[in-house]
Amino acid sequence: MTRIVILGNGNVAIQLTKAFVKSKECTVIQVYSRSKPSPYSLKKNIPTTHHLEQLKDADLYIIAISDDAISDFSKKLILKNKLVVHTSGSVAMNDLQSNSNKGVFYPLQSISKSKKISFKNIPICLEAENENDYQLLQRVANSISKKVYTINSNQRKKLHVAAVFVNNFVNHLYKIGNDICADNEIDFDILKPLIKETANKITTLSPTEAQTGPAKRNDKKTIEKQLQLLNNEQQTIYKILTESILKN
Amino acid sequence: MTRIVILGNGNVAIQLTKAFVKSKECTVIQVYSRSKPSPYSLKKNIPTTHHLEQLKDADLYIIAISDDAISDFSKKLILKNKLVVHTSGSVAMNDLQSNSNKGVFYPLQSISKSKKISFKNIPICLEAENENDYQLLQRVANSISKKVYTINSNQRKKLHVAAVFVNNFVNHLYKIGNDICADNEIDFDILKPLIKETANKITTLSPTEAQTGPAKRNDKKTIEKQLQLLNNEQQTIYKILTESILKN
Repeated sequence: MTRIVILGNGNVAIQLTKAFVKSKECTVIQVYSRSKPSPYSLKKNIPTTHHLEQLKDADLYIIAISDDAISDFSKKLILKNKLVVHTSGSVAMNDLQSNSNKGVFYPLQSISKSKKISFKNIPICLEAENENDYQLLQRVANSISKKVYTINSNQRKKLHVAAVFVNNFVNHLYKIGNDICADNEIDFDILKPLIKETANKITTLSPTEAQTGPAKRNDKKTIEKQLQLLNNEQQTIYKILTESILKN
Repeated sequence: MTRIVILGNGNVAIQLTKAFVKSKECTVIQVYSRSKPSPYSLKKNIPTTHHLEQLKDADLYIIAISDDAISDFSKKLILKNKLVVHTSGSVAMNDLQSNSNKGVFYPLQSISKSKKISFKNIPICLEAENENDYQLLQRVANSISKKVYTINSNQRKKLHVAAVFVNNFVNHLYKIGNDICADNEIDFDILKPLIKETANKITTLSPTEAQTGPAKRNDKKTIEKQLQLLNNEQQTIYKILTESILKN
């Protein structure tokens, strides 16, 4: 049984705690939190401490706090010969300044408090300084997810920006679609099957193979007509993305 | 039984023919095609003609050819008191120049030849000049899809450009994500669960509620760091979309 201490009390911290409590390989022996314990920790009787000097002896310490705070927070940890990891996509492993072994345990998903999630299909990207630590992280990751990858710090920051494109920016295009519908009294639900199909398509085709539409066909007449239907901001985005598709 | 003639031999024509053949309310009595009959028409013994003057007497004529060709093609149809519709998102109903009643039967989906599709969950957007014709279209649409909407020509062109955003442009962002992965020897599969989750999220949240990420948080430090990881073209797109998210 791998003994884990979770440092943090946000979405990722709570969701990871829940996943480890359910797993048969791991146990969460303590949560460190500056605020009061989460209802979940109370319900499951997981000891919570506000004091770093009271951290228990564990096999793995997982820092799950906001990206900006990780480096400074890790300075305060005196856990020599212990393994300390963070869960961030945008922070390098060596930004950890704990007096300890270092690693990364990065679940690549947009995790919100309200929505129930299962880690089973969430990719977990691992990095460690040495093989022993890597194996421990791998066991822990495999206990909650079927999708475990080795990703170094350089790859991880690239992966994180790629995720911004396929998640945040894609969602913004959904918003523009929604705005156009709302402005014309069209039910946005009409577009949802297409949105789903677009996401499904790339499980069997590459995005280049999956591409269709006026830009792909270089159909200048339709492009001109469509530009006239849009407001300034939408036009700018339409033009930039159309040009980029045309270049390919 | 509603008797349908399909005019065209492309993806939409063939997929619609298949759907009507399976439905219990409709029968495809003839296909008009300039090229040779599709293997499907041959297999199902659906009569095919190359001559417009040989069109059979039917309740509904569906033009399923490329958008640009619809208007000119429809001029050649002498089908007085008959109902002629097209299947295009970007062509107005009154662009039909057939000597006939007019309407639109627009299935909103990206339809490709290779991929097997079911119309059951594909929204079909209908328009007609009079109530009787609309009811006929509604019966036909309900026989193959659970999602039938009334959409006029002005709404339809807006819907079509919204579809370009949530389908073609979204797919292009998937491509950029794929490029970033390929350039850094990262398996694109890592991003696929996130892509699916992003598409799923908006079935329960509005795109505005679903938004996360550095632009939404106005996290200038991360935005600056991420820009440095991108090539010129990717930077342009990153900046435009980030600004647009910040404005909201």
